[in-house]
Amino acid sequence: MGNTFGTLFRISTWGESHGGSVGVVIDGCPPGLELCEVDIQVELDRRRPGQSDITTPRNEPDQVEFLSGVHEGRTLGTPIAMNVRNKDARSSAYSEMKLAYRPSHADFTYDAKYGRRMAEGGGRSSARETIGRVAAGAIARKILKEAGGVEIVAYVESIQDIRMPELGDAITREDVEATPVRCPDSETAAAMIKRIKEVRSQGDSVGGTIGCAVTGLPAGLGEPVFDRLEADLAKAMLSLPATKGFEIGSGFSGTALRGSEHNDVFENRDGAIRTRTNHAGGVLGGISSGEAIRFRTAFKPTATILREQETVTSAGEPTKLMGKGRHDACVLPRAVPIVEAMTALVLVDHWMRHSAQNATFPFSLTPVD
Amino acid sequence: MGNTFGTLFRISTWGESHGGSVGVVIDGCPPGLELCEVDIQVELDRRRPGQSDITTPRNEPDQVEFLSGVHEGRTLGTPIAMNVRNKDARSSAYSEMKLAYRPSHADFTYDAKYGRRMAEGGGRSSARETIGRVAAGAIARKILKEAGGVEIVAYVESIQDIRMPELGDAITREDVEATPVRCPDSETAAAMIKRIKEVRSQGDSVGGTIGCAVTGLPAGLGEPVFDRLEADLAKAMLSLPATKGFEIGSGFSGTALRGSEHNDVFENRDGAIRTRTNHAGGVLGGISSGEAIRFRTAFKPTATILREQETVTSAGEPTKLMGKGRHDACVLPRAVPIVEAMTALVLVDHWMRHSAQNATFPFSLTPVD
Amino acid sequence: MGNTFGTLFRISTWGESHGGSVGVVIDGCPPGLELCEVDIQVELDRRRPGQSDITTPRNEPDQVEFLSGVHEGRTLGTPIAMNVRNKDARSSAYSEMKLAYRPSHADFTYDAKYGRRMAEGGGRSSARETIGRVAAGAIARKILKEAGGVEIVAYVESIQDIRMPELGDAITREDVEATPVRCPDSETAAAMIKRIKEVRSQGDSVGGTIGCAVTGLPAGLGEPVFDRLEADLAKAMLSLPATKGFEIGSGFSGTALRGSEHNDVFENRDGAIRTRTNHAGGVLGGISSGEAIRFRTAFKPTATILREQETVTSAGEPTKLMGKGRHDACVLPRAVPIVEAMTALVLVDHWMRHSAQNATFPFSLTPVD
Amino acid sequence: MGNTFGTLFRISTWGESHGGSVGVVIDGCPPGLELCEVDIQVELDRRRPGQSDITTPRNEPDQVEFLSGVHEGRTLGTPIAMNVRNKDARSSAYSEMKLAYRPSHADFTYDAKYGRRMAEGGGRSSARETIGRVAAGAIARKILKEAGGVEIVAYVESIQDIRMPELGDAITREDVEATPVRCPDSETAAAMIKRIKEVRSQGDSVGGTIGCAVTGLPAGLGEPVFDRLEADLAKAMLSLPATKGFEIGSGFSGTALRGSEHNDVFENRDGAIRTRTNHAGGVLGGISSGEAIRFRTAFKPTATILREQETVTSAGEPTKLMGKGRHDACVLPRAVPIVEAMTALVLVDHWMRHSAQNATFPFSLTPVD
Repeated sequence: MGNTFGTLFRISTWGESHGGSVGVVIDGCPPGLELCEVDIQVELDRRRPGQSDITTPRNEPDQVEFLSGVHEGRTLGTPIAMNVRNKDARSSAYSEMKLAYRPSHADFTYDAKYGRRMAEGGGRSSARETIGRVAAGAIARKILKEAGGVEIVAYVESIQDIRMPELGDAITREDVEATPVRCPDSETAAAMIKRIKEVRSQGDSVGGTIGCAVTGLPAGLGEPVFDRLEADLAKAMLSLPATKGFEIGSGFSGTALRGSEHNDVFENRDGAIRTRTNHAGGVLGGISSGEAIRFRTAFKPTATILREQETVTSAGEPTKLMGKGRHDACVLPRAVPIVEAMTALVLVDHWMRHSAQNATFPFSLTPVD
Repeated sequence: MGNTFGTLFRISTWGESHGGSVGVVIDGCPPGLELCEVDIQVELDRRRPGQSDITTPRNEPDQVEFLSGVHEGRTLGTPIAMNVRNKDARSSAYSEMKLAYRPSHADFTYDAKYGRRMAEGGGRSSARETIGRVAAGAIARKILKEAGGVEIVAYVESIQDIRMPELGDAITREDVEATPVRCPDSETAAAMIKRIKEVRSQGDSVGGTIGCAVTGLPAGLGEPVFDRLEADLAKAMLSLPATKGFEIGSGFSGTALRGSEHNDVFENRDGAIRTRTNHAGGVLGGISSGEAIRFRTAFKPTATILREQETVTSAGEPTKLMGKGRHDACVLPRAVPIVEAMTALVLVDHWMRHSAQNATFPFSLTPVD
Repeated sequence: MGNTFGTLFRISTWGESHGGSVGVVIDGCPPGLELCEVDIQVELDRRRPGQSDITTPRNEPDQVEFLSGVHEGRTLGTPIAMNVRNKDARSSAYSEMKLAYRPSHADFTYDAKYGRRMAEGGGRSSARETIGRVAAGAIARKILKEAGGVEIVAYVESIQDIRMPELGDAITREDVEATPVRCPDSETAAAMIKRIKEVRSQGDSVGGTIGCAVTGLPAGLGEPVFDRLEADLAKAMLSLPATKGFEIGSGFSGTALRGSEHNDVFENRDGAIRTRTNHAGGVLGGISSGEAIRFRTAFKPTATILREQETVTSAGEPTKLMGKGRHDACVLPRAVPIVEAMTALVLVDHWMRHSAQNATFPFSLTPVD
Repeated sequence: MGNTFGTLFRISTWGESHGGSVGVVIDGCPPGLELCEVDIQVELDRRRPGQSDITTPRNEPDQVEFLSGVHEGRTLGTPIAMNVRNKDARSSAYSEMKLAYRPSHADFTYDAKYGRRMAEGGGRSSARETIGRVAAGAIARKILKEAGGVEIVAYVESIQDIRMPELGDAITREDVEATPVRCPDSETAAAMIKRIKEVRSQGDSVGGTIGCAVTGLPAGLGEPVFDRLEADLAKAMLSLPATKGFEIGSGFSGTALRGSEHNDVFENRDGAIRTRTNHAGGVLGGISSGEAIRFRTAFKPTATILREQETVTSAGEPTKLMGKGRHDACVLPRAVPIVEAMTALVLVDHWMRHSAQNATFPFSLTPVD
């Protein structure tokens, strides 16, 4: 259970790190969308290992294959299944993991929950499962962009104490892709890259935060009281591996302000109702306000470190474990497209839900007679 | 849409601030649980207005009535509907709200979404909708406590810059209820009360953070990859009015650490597999680890302030709005039972989901012959 | 579990026969629909006991009360909760039922499932639970009629061997309401009424079939492969108390034909693509074709009979049970509005689902800037 | 939408007749079940074309491949994705279908719904989509059989007017598999085979009914009021291509009886509470009674016939269409394993739902401390 996301643009993912494949099926994609495998591959390539000298040297092409749902270059409105074969399975690197629980990994809890697990590469708990999310998210992004002019841009905002300056809503994807660390401020990016290389050389790891801005989104999306837009974004972010926090708009720092400082005053700007400030981060009462959606996600430092750590075996015997294999000392650069994908999935789903409740009265379908 | 929460212990809430009633129906509550209206009322009383001199002076008894599902003092396994009549409807206090959009309230976005709204008291966007959550959560808490010994304790951790010291997992409900502000550290509580009265006297408002600890929860709850335990907790918290952030375990501050500092080492403690530290906050890979669940939620300052604010009318005309009525200058003390209720709802739902996938093989039911 | 129906126009019902109330909450009703309690009451009055001399003499007014979701005569787009108080609880008539399992009732299986039950009046297994369905269905019918010109007419087609002649799609509600038995053919109606009175005088009961025709429905509704329109209609009908069968179009009798006889040939009729015959009953591949939807539901004879029957107690001891109380010797006349209500709920839900997947590309919402 | 079935043992299927693949992903399968591809293949082989001289001569091996969820011969508790490549795509045979709507097929309604379709082989509306159902159903059957001793046996009961005698609940799978027509009565089977060959030689087709019996199922499964066991079975059956009717127990013929004839009297049989007759078909109030589940499904005659038929093009122009290709003159023999698969999926899902609501109180998980 728990491998399905969304209500109307609904995805179900599958796959273990060292099983045959990872993949996804989308149920509910609108028919008629132009789509080819390149649309997907371009996002998978931003996520794949081995893309730069600050990511893991594991080299997997992560080539997507459509299994269904696309015909003559357009979506049919039927389920779109996409599959990516696992290529680089070197099980021997993981043999110790069968015996000892890796600290801050899910080995122990998977055993507690399921009574068994695929030890190699973390099995289902590996971040490889996000491939299906990115593939589905690529379609959601295309819908949002082509049909609605909605842009989603995520970026690495901080690595440990290295934090980029506030750049507002104008960050472009080109700015983000300019450096391998995916921080749009070049000076900060350089410092981040230096830090990542430094900790990696020490067999250690770092975490940080990813910011995300959504522009072009109309007012009206979000389904109170439970499926508030920010609630579904929070869930989407905390469903990602290694995430520990989420904040929208003023977030935690906004708790230091008084109401008179924090409230966003409405004004008439060129005929549109807008707010002067955006402490809300683009949502009011769980519904988009038409202002930019702004949120931030915290990622813990990578659990795999190339150092000896104390732990226990599944039998509870104390042991020591030496991290091996090829891992990211910092997952954030590769997590940027994943954050964007999940955001796109949430937004398309909410757009469809809003349409359902509001576009249908009066009905637009025309009876036969 | 969006007024249903949970998959197996599923609640649907209804009600507007100044409509006839607010309420909830639970589908999926196990049969045979001892239950009476007092079990519910005790939690509603912690949430109700007028309970102390730092909450709104509006006085509503918020008396719950069972409409179904309970018979001879026990649950039947059928839907439990509970209703609370709205008593204190003083529509005149809200007449201006029909004309002008209150800053940082949901008036504007409800209009954008639905094309209409109940202006009085905020209608569905009022925090009165949380009554249904607290009523359902009271049942979930009872299940967790009686059947599993699971304890959920939330508390006001900070108001603006006033922050309580770290007290560990040992905070009890009695500690929390000792002061009206629901901060278990008495010195901090006194400072918080002083601050709330001070800003209230200035017609202003404050926000802060609520911490929550869950103890006694076994390892194994959570449904990766999307319905991770922390993902559902994050959604639950961000579905509450006025929330802007969520973090679990080390949260945002953990992003400053290195992996070697952040990892929680496993050890054998009295025959059980435990972690030496708990930066994870009780979850690994989306599944409970058996350590205490620790998370924190950020609440913005109350949007309603008793000061004149600029805004626009629904026609886009600039106007000024003077906050009136009887409001909380700080919502956090009354939000404590709501945070606990949502936490309990998430946990019972996950416990049932876990049971479904794991308790059924081999089956326990006995065929007739 | 299992007390929720629909995905976008979603209802959750509650209530036991002799508990406080029966009711329903609808999540997803479009905003802006004109609605008052009379719209609901008119359908409840068609369902209520005591409405004619061939139904049970129990007299319950079944007065509906809106708890939420309607304001100034229009729906808000928020949950609409409706409640009906149980009035006529005469528990003494049911005291024997606590001891003995009534044949062909759900007493035994409720005990097997839940370990307990409300014995009085059958508790949740009583047909009183359909009040919530009829109340919600009244709103769905109003949407279909006002917005789309869709008409749903159900009618009693047969009682035992007494079967009305085939009247085509032209049956009106007025025809149906002309007699208390709700058979639109007056001659057949008279024979049915005679039969019902006859078996009732013998302390016995009868069953029969209810036909239903939906006209004005456009082509395109239905969600293959699982949520075919006929699949959801079949589920809706078999979810009703006392139902044992469902067929659409040619149904079981169509299995006697050859393909060359059964196929519905397409033709161009006045510029529209239509079929010459309608063996399909208005659906092809799970999707409405624009032809009239025609289906039929089988109802078993009422289980309660005023005769002595053998049975066992919950302890397995043989005993005898004499039916008492005031019951319908034939449930079909009162089931007609229930069949219509369930049909309306299925259709509105599918209309909203279709809109979501198809109306959203290109999007109709306009961004702020 | 609509390509997901089940709530806890949940399947999502994909694939078009002439696309790359057809497949399924199961979310919620219990961990630890022994499983290999042969378990699936044996059921797919019963469904595949070309298996006997009364089915279509198209020869497709329909070889299943596990993409995920199985490791070292056991299920992991993670999603199980299974894929079957389409092999025998001869698009030229279908070129006319792009121009003309085949009578009683879904070409017209798919166009009406989605605005486009894959014409070759019927695309998603082809019965090839049932491959995913059979693959998932094979796992559900294994769970039911191994863990609970539940047996599901479907069989061809009638072809047109040729109907097998009533054989009771004792029909075995061996009886059914004894002839290619899958009718367990050998004399009737011979007549059916003769009829199928006869109509096929005339370019025509026939329909009929499939019966199904479930034995060994305990009392207590089913989730009133909407997710009654028979309601979910009815939906499952009517979701299959070419089905037009469903009845359980006495079904339509039971409407001719009086209550005193139809009621199933309870008795104590060897210490168990049983019913003397089984007009109910194994369900009371939507919940299994412990008696055999007995139901029947009507299949219309195959829509594809090798005769010239009138129809229209998508532009509404009258035309004639001559059926070509290699088709089943009678789909029922190949539909038997599909009926069994859907039945198994419904039963496992209900078993898990029942466990969730009932096995969890008191909880069985043990806290760490």
